[in-house]
Amino acid sequence: MAVGLDDFPLIPEIKGIRIGVAEAGIKRPNKKDVVIFELCEGASVAGVFTQNAFCAAPVRICQRHLGLEGSRYLLINTGNANAGTGKSGLATALKTCDALAAQVGVNVESILPFSTGVIGEPLPADKIIAAIPAALANLSPDNWHSAGVGIMTTDTLPKGSVRTFDFDGRTYTIAGISKGAGMIRPNMATMLGYIGSDIAMDVNLLQIILKSVVNKSFNRITVDSDTSTNDSCIAVVTGMAGNTKVTSIEEPLAQAFIAAFTEVMQELAHAIVRDGEGATKFVTVEVAGAAKQSDATKTAFEIAHSPLVKTALFASDPNWGRILAVVGRAGVENLDVDCVQLHINGFEIARDGGRSPDYREEHGKQAMAPEEIHIIVDLGMGDASDVVWTTDFSHEYVTINAEYRT
Amino acid sequence: MAVGLDDFPLIPEIKGIRIGVAEAGIKRPNKKDVVIFELCEGASVAGVFTQNAFCAAPVRICQRHLGLEGSRYLLINTGNANAGTGKSGLATALKTCDALAAQVGVNVESILPFSTGVIGEPLPADKIIAAIPAALANLSPDNWHSAGVGIMTTDTLPKGSVRTFDFDGRTYTIAGISKGAGMIRPNMATMLGYIGSDIAMDVNLLQIILKSVVNKSFNRITVDSDTSTNDSCIAVVTGMAGNTKVTSIEEPLAQAFIAAFTEVMQELAHAIVRDGEGATKFVTVEVAGAAKQSDATKTAFEIAHSPLVKTALFASDPNWGRILAVVGRAGVENLDVDCVQLHINGFEIARDGGRSPDYREEHGKQAMAPEEIHIIVDLGMGDASDVVWTTDFSHEYVTINAEYRT
Repeated sequence: MAVGLDDFPLIPEIKGIRIGVAEAGIKRPNKKDVVIFELCEGASVAGVFTQNAFCAAPVRICQRHLGLEGSRYLLINTGNANAGTGKSGLATALKTCDALAAQVGVNVESILPFSTGVIGEPLPADKIIAAIPAALANLSPDNWHSAGVGIMTTDTLPKGSVRTFDFDGRTYTIAGISKGAGMIRPNMATMLGYIGSDIAMDVNLLQIILKSVVNKSFNRITVDSDTSTNDSCIAVVTGMAGNTKVTSIEEPLAQAFIAAFTEVMQELAHAIVRDGEGATKFVTVEVAGAAKQSDATKTAFEIAHSPLVKTALFASDPNWGRILAVVGRAGVENLDVDCVQLHINGFEIARDGGRSPDYREEHGKQAMAPEEIHIIVDLGMGDASDVVWTTDFSHEYVTINAEYRT
Repeated sequence: MAVGLDDFPLIPEIKGIRIGVAEAGIKRPNKKDVVIFELCEGASVAGVFTQNAFCAAPVRICQRHLGLEGSRYLLINTGNANAGTGKSGLATALKTCDALAAQVGVNVESILPFSTGVIGEPLPADKIIAAIPAALANLSPDNWHSAGVGIMTTDTLPKGSVRTFDFDGRTYTIAGISKGAGMIRPNMATMLGYIGSDIAMDVNLLQIILKSVVNKSFNRITVDSDTSTNDSCIAVVTGMAGNTKVTSIEEPLAQAFIAAFTEVMQELAHAIVRDGEGATKFVTVEVAGAAKQSDATKTAFEIAHSPLVKTALFASDPNWGRILAVVGRAGVENLDVDCVQLHINGFEIARDGGRSPDYREEHGKQAMAPEEIHIIVDLGMGDASDVVWTTDFSHEYVTINAEYRT
């Protein structure tokens, strides 16, 4: 059902990163559900996490461990989110970290745990612990695809992205995987993204770049307006490319990295939308001509969240009045509806607050027919703009979410 | 499909109000789609209207006419909302008012127009004008049920409510009709409500009472989070009961009126939810223990709008973690998740930020099985609370909204 989602790319080795995958029996029999990333000594790790106050136990531990010392292992399970589990959730998450730390001989603070799946049920720590030896035995630099599969929940396909770029005679690689199809309206991060590169970069600079690029990628997608309790996005640089450590965003190499990094992050973010629960459309919502950026952002999100707009998109129905109705209630101060314009896939639909004089129903039908829809709303107030990516709302969405636990 | 919606009540004559209904052929053949209310001279009319900036042409005219002089006629059509129609929409709405004014011999400012239906298409003024004589010929004090049918769009049943109360030897009647099933998240009004009473009351006091009671009824329901462009709620008092005009909210008669009026308004508001598009559940979302009322209100609405909560309600699936996840992202400042409690239909589900120690899956299943669901979230922060009423999210919802125009 995924919309225009390419095959998982061939991801080359990123020196300093090995990945192991195992079946712990949390999800279903014969499904990969535990993934371990091993990072070389000296690797720098940056992370952004959900802003949901009910953030999951592993998120709290990650935030604590990330600041303490060099992170060496990411321990990821699917099938259970370990969220809404109170104090005992923290204890069970730490127990899995302890088990991995003991087997590989590092401090527990070097382990970053991640969980995704059903909220509110106790984490089956024993199953995870029992699967750790198999995952460690499986460690290899070539396991990106398996890891992409291993972190899936309601995703129908694994999601990966890779870019290489040359700078000053060296080739750098950036690769990542992501997962997520529902409970997707990331707020400072998504559930889940892991991006690695062989570049050498100061960890504070990496954190700044990650936060900034997240706001142009994962923080601009929405499937169903619900922010997950477990959102986490992690960037790792191993330094194995051999460059002098990048320490300033002004450096040309930092700029080259950001350009490629942004492409990887956007591709991973779009992949989540393309594989959104029940998605039949990939929709770009662009709001231009706003007086300030926050007006553009909130209007774009309100359009992307409206069940009436999303069901009309599902039906390929040019019921564009619903889009204007959302613009009108989005809370834009001093909006003059007589200045609003609406284009869909290149067709001018509305202007001056009403239907365009040249509009014909056939135009609307043509505009709404493709799988890829580009909506542009111009508020006619200023120069600020923003873009959000989303999906439609289908029968399949209801089926998936009514039957998720059964 | 409506959930626990009673039959339309027997509404007695309210002296000073006559209603006429006709078929203009806007909706479908043989469907009532034009309704005229005739109000006696001296009737007082209060109104509240949508806050959507894209408010419809008839809403703008209503707001202008309501302030000018005694309103005498309400002219309502369904099948076309006359919204997103720019300046020509205003002209066509005025044309229908002019036609009615000429036939009954009043100023055009005495006419209040209302439209509901598809957004963005030109109002078929000629069809409405052609139907006016039939509606006028049909005027009768006994047409409340026909009017309830005549204002329906995707509603499956007409919605009415009536209360009588005695005070100081006199009997007073309050009756009303409402419509709406989708694009329901009223903001200061709903689409559409008409309430009449024979009490004599100062129009400014009536306006104050209407605004206040709307905030406990229509402004606390949501089906799909979308605020309509045409929301209007009108209260009429004819003074035919013969009492000395009520002028202060302190008067015991004002208090007796407010009590009965609130019951009518809440019943009409609940009827819209019970008949919400695709509804299989009637859900009361109560948020208590908030530090301030706005926290309670926004948390309740966020729960009521979450597609993940709504699809779990549809499936009668006790996936209560989704409710906690919404509470966590609702933006409540200083929320301590370890103090949050959750009850559903009397079962304690969560406490101290996690599953209740006594919780069993059977409790969750029992709690979620009935058609009527009462969710109580206690934030454990203070004494403020609020209540919002909503529906679940079903396949039928997608079907209705994907096929609305076809």
